[in-house]
Amino acid sequence: MSGVIVTDPPKAEAKHVEALSGYGVATVSEAMGRAGLLGTHLRPIQQDTRIAGTAVTVLSWPGDNLMIHAAVEQCGEGDILVVTTTSPSTDGLFGELFATALKQRGVRGLVIDTGVRDTSELREMGFPVWSAAVSAQGTVKATGGSVNVPIVIGNQVIHPGDVIVADDDGVVVVPRLRAGQVAEASEAREDKEAATRAAFREGQLGLDRYGLREKLVQLGVSYRPYEEYARGGDGS
Amino acid sequence: MSGVIVTDPPKAEAKHVEALSGYGVATVSEAMGRAGLLGTHLRPIQQDTRIAGTAVTVLSWPGDNLMIHAAVEQCGEGDILVVTTTSPSTDGLFGELFATALKQRGVRGLVIDTGVRDTSELREMGFPVWSAAVSAQGTVKATGGSVNVPIVIGNQVIHPGDVIVADDDGVVVVPRLRAGQVAEASEAREDKEAATRAAFREGQLGLDRYGLREKLVQLGVSYRPYEEYARGGDGS
Amino acid sequence: MSGVIVTDPPKAEAKHVEALSGYGVATVSEAMGRAGLLGTHLRPIQQDTRIAGTAVTVLSWPGDNLMIHAAVEQCGEGDILVVTTTSPSTDGLFGELFATALKQRGVRGLVIDTGVRDTSELREMGFPVWSAAVSAQGTVKATGGSVNVPIVIGNQVIHPGDVIVADDDGVVVVPRLRAGQVAEASEAREDKEAATRAAFREGQLGLDRYGLREKLVQLGVSYRPYEEYARGGDGS
Amino acid sequence: MSGVIVTDPPKAEAKHVEALSGYGVATVSEAMGRAGLLGTHLRPIQQDTRIAGTAVTVLSWPGDNLMIHAAVEQCGEGDILVVTTTSPSTDGLFGELFATALKQRGVRGLVIDTGVRDTSELREMGFPVWSAAVSAQGTVKATGGSVNVPIVIGNQVIHPGDVIVADDDGVVVVPRLRAGQVAEASEAREDKEAATRAAFREGQLGLDRYGLREKLVQLGVSYRPYEEYARGGDGS
Amino acid sequence: MSGVIVTDPPKAEAKHVEALSGYGVATVSEAMGRAGLLGTHLRPIQQDTRIAGTAVTVLSWPGDNLMIHAAVEQCGEGDILVVTTTSPSTDGLFGELFATALKQRGVRGLVIDTGVRDTSELREMGFPVWSAAVSAQGTVKATGGSVNVPIVIGNQVIHPGDVIVADDDGVVVVPRLRAGQVAEASEAREDKEAATRAAFREGQLGLDRYGLREKLVQLGVSYRPYEEYARGGDGS
Amino acid sequence: MSGVIVTDPPKAEAKHVEALSGYGVATVSEAMGRAGLLGTHLRPIQQDTRIAGTAVTVLSWPGDNLMIHAAVEQCGEGDILVVTTTSPSTDGLFGELFATALKQRGVRGLVIDTGVRDTSELREMGFPVWSAAVSAQGTVKATGGSVNVPIVIGNQVIHPGDVIVADDDGVVVVPRLRAGQVAEASEAREDKEAATRAAFREGQLGLDRYGLREKLVQLGVSYRPYEEYARGGDGS
Repeated sequence: MSGVIVTDPPKAEAKHVEALSGYGVATVSEAMGRAGLLGTHLRPIQQDTRIAGTAVTVLSWPGDNLMIHAAVEQCGEGDILVVTTTSPSTDGLFGELFATALKQRGVRGLVIDTGVRDTSELREMGFPVWSAAVSAQGTVKATGGSVNVPIVIGNQVIHPGDVIVADDDGVVVVPRLRAGQVAEASEAREDKEAATRAAFREGQLGLDRYGLREKLVQLGVSYRPYEEYARGGDGS
Repeated sequence: MSGVIVTDPPKAEAKHVEALSGYGVATVSEAMGRAGLLGTHLRPIQQDTRIAGTAVTVLSWPGDNLMIHAAVEQCGEGDILVVTTTSPSTDGLFGELFATALKQRGVRGLVIDTGVRDTSELREMGFPVWSAAVSAQGTVKATGGSVNVPIVIGNQVIHPGDVIVADDDGVVVVPRLRAGQVAEASEAREDKEAATRAAFREGQLGLDRYGLREKLVQLGVSYRPYEEYARGGDGS
Repeated sequence: MSGVIVTDPPKAEAKHVEALSGYGVATVSEAMGRAGLLGTHLRPIQQDTRIAGTAVTVLSWPGDNLMIHAAVEQCGEGDILVVTTTSPSTDGLFGELFATALKQRGVRGLVIDTGVRDTSELREMGFPVWSAAVSAQGTVKATGGSVNVPIVIGNQVIHPGDVIVADDDGVVVVPRLRAGQVAEASEAREDKEAATRAAFREGQLGLDRYGLREKLVQLGVSYRPYEEYARGGDGS
Repeated sequence: MSGVIVTDPPKAEAKHVEALSGYGVATVSEAMGRAGLLGTHLRPIQQDTRIAGTAVTVLSWPGDNLMIHAAVEQCGEGDILVVTTTSPSTDGLFGELFATALKQRGVRGLVIDTGVRDTSELREMGFPVWSAAVSAQGTVKATGGSVNVPIVIGNQVIHPGDVIVADDDGVVVVPRLRAGQVAEASEAREDKEAATRAAFREGQLGLDRYGLREKLVQLGVSYRPYEEYARGGDGS
Repeated sequence: MSGVIVTDPPKAEAKHVEALSGYGVATVSEAMGRAGLLGTHLRPIQQDTRIAGTAVTVLSWPGDNLMIHAAVEQCGEGDILVVTTTSPSTDGLFGELFATALKQRGVRGLVIDTGVRDTSELREMGFPVWSAAVSAQGTVKATGGSVNVPIVIGNQVIHPGDVIVADDDGVVVVPRLRAGQVAEASEAREDKEAATRAAFREGQLGLDRYGLREKLVQLGVSYRPYEEYARGGDGS
Repeated sequence: MSGVIVTDPPKAEAKHVEALSGYGVATVSEAMGRAGLLGTHLRPIQQDTRIAGTAVTVLSWPGDNLMIHAAVEQCGEGDILVVTTTSPSTDGLFGELFATALKQRGVRGLVIDTGVRDTSELREMGFPVWSAAVSAQGTVKATGGSVNVPIVIGNQVIHPGDVIVADDDGVVVVPRLRAGQVAEASEAREDKEAATRAAFREGQLGLDRYGLREKLVQLGVSYRPYEEYARGGDGS
């Protein structure tokens, strides 16, 4: 694994990133056909924060943050650093000093499939992080890896320049060339949800709004009063 | 699994629910003989919130929220929705739109043995949730299930109409017909704890208050000064 | 396992504990050569709190808090209670009553490799806790164990009188006799980090500051423009 | 938790147990409507063994095997011992001596939601076990529990006298009064599967046999030649 | 997620598959630069079996095996079926009937990132399986998915037609177009290992063979006699 | 972490190792007071094999097997190699080539708290292994560590020269200087168990043999006929 640092990959258009930043992770994932989620193991270290930006990807050896140093130089305004390791690890590959360097370059946050440290300081300086673990375990700088190559986190492929959206529900990746289309589909979905929300507030049921009563009948789901159910059936 | 939606199950008496709402989950579980807990894997998405209410139960297919739609209609004032799936899953079966519909009906919160999404919005609207995961993963409405049948979460059986109490420590279920008795036992326990608290504040030791010094002797636990211990023993 | 309660073990000097209280867990661990961490499974129940103190250790049977009662008597000003069980468990061995008793004696907090309960109350009373689980599950007082013997949590040996430092990143143990030296090394590390922080704020890169460009060359990591990379390589 | 030892519970009829012993766990679960499975965490310590028998249930305190001693006396010809603990544990509550006692009484095997030890000896003596862990960790006899009360393992309620079937795929529970009906349904299912097997051996496709081609169309699943797909699509 | 069934994808050349079938998973992964492994969670249900073949990929909804039926038709001589789900699941999506159908078509085995059932029967009929779980849990056929699209298991992308090699150590994927090159590199690696094996058998040390003594010196690793170490050091 | 290789540590006496090799892991752990077990996560790759020997310990960086090369030279007749990493990892640090080298030196087996590969070959050559994972993931030789220092696995401290006993139930460590005493206690325990086994074979109950009937009464456990229990109780 000699590794390669790929420079100047194309990025999703800024206007699409901005458009996507207006929607939550659940909306964006639905707009892509219920896809793109990086897995429930990535949790935010802060609450009530949403970011969107373009991915700079890093593939590191476990317990080694050398390639994050290499990646900092490749990061710029509007980017999100996205880091994984060649095999599972929880070590704290990233802390407040890296965040200082990245903030200086206009980077919006970090998504990392291993550990992060200095979490209190990171919250205080307003640098948002989604990570698989919180760990103070330090690292070495001994083994090569790659920057801006396609990486995989939680069964999703992330290419450099793809759009990352992250909020309290998790992290979603939008392929670079689909960013505009997904932003539009997100908007459409939000409009539909707003109408549903209004209807639900007035007491309409999803059963009626989505025509699900027929579905229940089709599937053989039946209604039974409790007394009858309790007398007769095995129920389970 | 054709499934059944059971209507109008009997519920614990409102006065007992109200009484139980005055006690924490740990107190209620102790009052039942250290029983009734739904497991440490259910965590609140908010902090410092306690709810109590009567269970409306849902058994869904993994990745499918059809039966939650059916359950909404069965929910009313003072209920808590309790959802599980036929096999393990982390998908986000529940979000802010469901909460909007449930809030409109007076439902007090959600306990779900799979994932929840829109967590930031749910906190903002004050709809409390205890879940096994946070996940933006969307769902289908394709397979039948049941509403208001007995379900099992974390090795506890939950019948519709049972009392659910949930706080930062987790979730406990109180069988419908024991609600009154458990509320009384909870009060008795709190009184006892208040006396203990006062005694501990004045420096009394549990060793003395509970008569545990004899127990230690009986069990062969001995006291040894450090110097003697360090010289002699194997220590493990 | 008859067990032993060791009395009056030597403790790290107060001035060294105080000195260590000025540094975060990550700094202290680095100052010990990237060692001493108790594992990522211990999480705080509160946010943005750091404590340092001397360990009073407890080895309990799972689901049994008898020995914590015995340990309270051995605790005093400036101590931190550190509890583990003879085999894995998540039961809530510790709650608000214990915290009341410990606070009265000047104990600074709890580190426990099993469950804790009354978490909301513990936060309110300002008694900080790091635990492996949150659980309302109650316990018995039936089986013996030991106090102030060496215990192991997360692959670290903790002797009574060792220094414990805990913050949002986790928990680290500093051997009693190394406390002074580690405090000095922590200070040196912080000074170095302050200089790095200042340099990073002005845009210097870790690649240059740490001389890592050569390292990348040595390891065979190469730079390739995206266009060339996309045309040619297999990328993985 | 004072506990109770329930004597002489009714058991499923021997002829139904025998009938069920002819079918695998997957078949029996399907015959109950895809229900009754005790979870994938219970694994056999031996290979290619299937047993069926009537449940004698045990609820123990974690790390305590007192109630298994009490249960032995309640066990007889054709029973299977089914053990769980009040909270999660992996301790080795059961070993070769218990198996010797149980074998002497005609017990057919053990299902245990904690650990087992002496696994090599148990295989040698032909006493089959399904457990959640293998652990040599010894136990105490200090805390009460119950025998022949309903218990829950892996979200399934097991009543004393219910039928347990276990094989390499796991463990399934059949409620006592449904044993006859489930045996019949199992037979019907096996007949159907035999016909399918024969058809598949001659090359028929499930798509055709089960009429799934229409289903695919309904669901909007389309067929596309690779060349077209590779040119056009978004790929996800 | 309407889904698509891609027909007639290109496959790795048969001679390269055959060549790769001569090497173990560890060798093939090393030959690709320590890459391509599908993760330690995939375990064989049989022992001492190795297979190699070309991937037919399936993306299913959790708890739903409809798309496996669709995939059978796309499978032929020399293929290996590779199945994953859109979100994590352990349900038994595959059993002996599917294996009967696949065997009739010349398929060599199954790799599945969820559960498998009928494991005893599958071993008996000689149909090898690597799976994330063993589970008798049955499934529905209600939701669409895709066949022969790129899928991700354990952070590896698998394209239809890629080579899969699986043995007791796990599963590795070799990209279709690299199959020949990786087979050659595997051979080279085995030759090298044979020489090392012979040298080790005669007592040569890796320290000498790989020139690691210098490396240890460079890294500051020192040799110390036990007596000196025990007297002086801090040991940790 | 510069690391140190400690040479010629004292070892447990050969006669004590030989004596201990006659007892199973469960017996030895009981003989030490239910202590010394390395945790249920370490599983054998073979079945029905027991080994005993003296520990040569290795502390490696995750994903790095440099220190195992250094350790080979320190290994000799009757040793067992015991390896852990500074933070959790599943990488395959050990394979058949290492086993070839170790076998040549008379080493009896491997205990490793990370992954192992070439498992089929290791079984074939009769080199027994207990590991936390099976993984083909290759490693680097880039970071220092230590040999023959005290290490911790599964909450047990292992010193070089301690006795390791491993069988199908797991792994136990016996401190060097206690080996003789533990061997004696193991023999005593086996004698006692043989008597119990004989009594159980003749139908005696543990309840009677261990005097547990009184214990049940003391603990308030009561006997109730099923009919009475089913009529009256709350059952939980």
